[in-house]
Amino acid sequence: MTIEATWKALATHHAGVAGRSILSLFDDPGRAAAFSAELAYEDGAPASFLLDYSKTNLDVRGLALLMDLARAARVEARRDAMFAGRPINETEGRAVLHTMLRGAPDPALPAAWTTEVIDTLRRMVTFARAVRSGAFAGVGGAFTDVINIGIGGSDLGPVMATLALAPYHDGPRAHFISNVDGAQAADTLRGLNPATTLVIVASKTFTTIETMTNAATVRDWMQGAGVDAAAQMVAVSSAGDLAAEWGIPPERVFGFGDFIGGRYSVWGPVGLAVMLAVGPEDFGAFLDGAALMDRHFRQAPLDRNLPVLLAMVGVWHAQICGYATRAVLPYDQRLSRLPAYLQQLEMESNGKRVAMDGTDLPRSSGPVVWGEPGTNGQHAFYQMIHQGTRVIPCEFLIAAQGHEPALAQHHRLLIANCLAQSEALMRGRSLAEARALMAARGLTGAELERQARHRVFPGDRPSVTMAYRQLTPFALGMILALYEHRVFVEGVVLGINSFDQWGVELGKELALKLEPLLTPGADDSAKDGSTRLLLGHLRG
Amino acid sequence: MTIEATWKALATHHAGVAGRSILSLFDDPGRAAAFSAELAYEDGAPASFLLDYSKTNLDVRGLALLMDLARAARVEARRDAMFAGRPINETEGRAVLHTMLRGAPDPALPAAWTTEVIDTLRRMVTFARAVRSGAFAGVGGAFTDVINIGIGGSDLGPVMATLALAPYHDGPRAHFISNVDGAQAADTLRGLNPATTLVIVASKTFTTIETMTNAATVRDWMQGAGVDAAAQMVAVSSAGDLAAEWGIPPERVFGFGDFIGGRYSVWGPVGLAVMLAVGPEDFGAFLDGAALMDRHFRQAPLDRNLPVLLAMVGVWHAQICGYATRAVLPYDQRLSRLPAYLQQLEMESNGKRVAMDGTDLPRSSGPVVWGEPGTNGQHAFYQMIHQGTRVIPCEFLIAAQGHEPALAQHHRLLIANCLAQSEALMRGRSLAEARALMAARGLTGAELERQARHRVFPGDRPSVTMAYRQLTPFALGMILALYEHRVFVEGVVLGINSFDQWGVELGKELALKLEPLLTPGADDSAKDGSTRLLLGHLRG
Repeated sequence: MTIEATWKALATHHAGVAGRSILSLFDDPGRAAAFSAELAYEDGAPASFLLDYSKTNLDVRGLALLMDLARAARVEARRDAMFAGRPINETEGRAVLHTMLRGAPDPALPAAWTTEVIDTLRRMVTFARAVRSGAFAGVGGAFTDVINIGIGGSDLGPVMATLALAPYHDGPRAHFISNVDGAQAADTLRGLNPATTLVIVASKTFTTIETMTNAATVRDWMQGAGVDAAAQMVAVSSAGDLAAEWGIPPERVFGFGDFIGGRYSVWGPVGLAVMLAVGPEDFGAFLDGAALMDRHFRQAPLDRNLPVLLAMVGVWHAQICGYATRAVLPYDQRLSRLPAYLQQLEMESNGKRVAMDGTDLPRSSGPVVWGEPGTNGQHAFYQMIHQGTRVIPCEFLIAAQGHEPALAQHHRLLIANCLAQSEALMRGRSLAEARALMAARGLTGAELERQARHRVFPGDRPSVTMAYRQLTPFALGMILALYEHRVFVEGVVLGINSFDQWGVELGKELALKLEPLLTPGADDSAKDGSTRLLLGHLRG
Repeated sequence: MTIEATWKALATHHAGVAGRSILSLFDDPGRAAAFSAELAYEDGAPASFLLDYSKTNLDVRGLALLMDLARAARVEARRDAMFAGRPINETEGRAVLHTMLRGAPDPALPAAWTTEVIDTLRRMVTFARAVRSGAFAGVGGAFTDVINIGIGGSDLGPVMATLALAPYHDGPRAHFISNVDGAQAADTLRGLNPATTLVIVASKTFTTIETMTNAATVRDWMQGAGVDAAAQMVAVSSAGDLAAEWGIPPERVFGFGDFIGGRYSVWGPVGLAVMLAVGPEDFGAFLDGAALMDRHFRQAPLDRNLPVLLAMVGVWHAQICGYATRAVLPYDQRLSRLPAYLQQLEMESNGKRVAMDGTDLPRSSGPVVWGEPGTNGQHAFYQMIHQGTRVIPCEFLIAAQGHEPALAQHHRLLIANCLAQSEALMRGRSLAEARALMAARGLTGAELERQARHRVFPGDRPSVTMAYRQLTPFALGMILALYEHRVFVEGVVLGINSFDQWGVELGKELALKLEPLLTPGADDSAKDGSTRLLLGHLRG
């Protein structure tokens, strides 16, 4: 079948099964085994990563059609082209090789790239060891604190991973300044000692306006305290010349090639803050977990391939069923910034409106991705997920074990709640059940009927659950690589370029033009009435 | 017109104007003034809160129809019923009077309620002064840290407000434990001194499983260090008897009536953590800001009434235009938890599927609410907002001034970026403009055409901007009360009960039943195959 014929067949299939309940699919005792996939891994102890997508309305035919779609879209060929270093980021003419940062050297790739990646990682490790041992110290002694100044891809990954790996944190405290809002710099610097603070300035071009504005403010704060800022600064940048203008010597500049996109960069120099926090060994395990997922993605058949399956379930919900959002709900407080990280990874990658060739997309691009950790979300927005009018597919993440043996009862409740939510979403509660509930509470007549209706849950709401042994550095690497490749596969199936981001340019341009208009007396007559009203209200 | 006729007229009107560009509406030089509203306030200096909704596709007729809809839904009568203490939370038979926590006493309301509210506030103030002065101290001396243990409405408000008011924070450090995941308790307790830590246990019933599990863990931590936990604990609860079982004496129990819903409760005892952080005076200003918005909501005509206008713009986008989500984008880093707070406020309130009388809603209930602060979001998900296939209405919040005079240039960039985004969303970039851009960069022929198409922004994407002088306690109070009343008006227009939350019950029930099944050997044969698969994978 052609790709368009496959899309059409999926739509027809969906229309045919729309009235069927998900729960009825479990009449087949083999359902859960057939609609789940596992990846074995070794992480201290043998373990297995489980992706359970059986609580969806996919059946054998639906899944087969999705696999047809993946094949028709040439997912395998595109995947191989990515790993082979072809310029699959076509609008920018670049290869996409963030996987180089975590895998074994590939002799098929340009030796210069391999050398650069290996050399940079080695330098990072040496540097991290020196900082963590105190061999490289601030004017006031060993570094107690590290500030990472970056935004977007130079911030979300390190923030998320540092929090996720809190139990492994044995280096200096980590802080992050991203927003150009001076509030963040002010609140972060309060209480820090410039004499023992290391500053990472992470901007590939060393021109990102937010980052350089914050870097200048932090430099002023250090200099104002008599600390030589340049002596305690690191650049994560490919613009060594600009870093040099800041007085940062080449040995403290860590760059990366244009084959590493910002939102895929936590594995390399952008991850330096993480490496300083947890140490090179745990950072290495993080890379190893991602590398395992890379190998799995390259080798596993499509219908046992976790990233492919997660992607095709996503396509089913977003493009076939038409659900506009998906909720990512980690039952893991330390993954509380995973949704924000995935918002960039997924929405910046696949929030596009034209296909690779520039033609208008014939269907919706990616969904809005949002979420908060469970159980917190249960006490906030789950009301809408259970009883709202729109279906919101959910992605649950849960570890078998926490890191606090003494708090095992907490973890048991956490698991019970996670599993109860996917069960409740699927089962729902019928009007008859709700009536019985109200009758048992002594209600009768019209009031029983009215109250019962408020307690009906329509059910049939789909979810996916991912389960792993423990949120170790290795497991975190697996999870992030899984999502990266999921985004890749979804992009290929939609026919878009997941690796550019032209949609961020216009706002930047207009901001540059607007800034002078904030000066009192500036001529804003060329602007629309709303912008002029706001300028008048906000002008200093 | 009847309410259904008005809904129909709005749909017809929408169909008629769907092709019109928002920018074209600014041909009318009076557009911005006519489609914005202000509320003057006094907050140290005279100021004005501006709601600009002119960058939407609403015109005079559309707005008039929305006002007709509000009238047909009897918004004013329902509002007056709320303030009069009628049991408008009909499924629970309760009044809705969180506004009592912040307004002047109303002689029309039951004297016992008024007395209780005033007395509790007075006790909170006395207690906060004693803690802040050190008169009430821990066994190790004056309290250095406060932990608020609560979840949902007992957590999101205090977390959000404490962060928002960081510049006013002069009390003990504030910490929050919400998730049943032991990770959060472990990470929070690390480094705290039990001898100088005050613990607030916030659970109206004192039975919330997450909160009581965490409270027990924190108590163990204190007792394990030889600290008498009960002597340093406070209960925010209406169950004084259960608090007494924990050894918490009545003078340290702060309750609230059933006319205060959890997600509307930050104004009272649930806000104790905020009051301890910023002091009773600043907390009082927070209440005053909300009270001003309450008076405005009660008195202003519908078409100059900020909560009504914000609500009806929301209805226009969610129910008439059919946009499934809305993004809340505070250009204010200290409002970084406002979206999470609003997720509960809006989605738990209006994520319903039946009308007040139990009949199925004939249209979509509230949208998914999500967002992150600007400028951070610009480097993450704005790609999709600008160039995705689905329209996402945006709500921007911006202050004229920051709290850091030395960082005025940061704030200038912040404002310029905020205004540039709403401008870019509205204007977009045409194919002709994109072609010119590519030609200027030397491209020609097919490559020019292809590249140009990737740089087209469709524009016509609606947004609302709210501007205020500075994020003071008073302004924060205004903003939150504005959103509360917005949610109320949207709920009235949809005909739903915004004050119950039956949708959270089923998951809780199932979690209780699932927990024993996590014991090895437990009989899970009554469960569906997916839940059994997951139990097998996660069982200890």
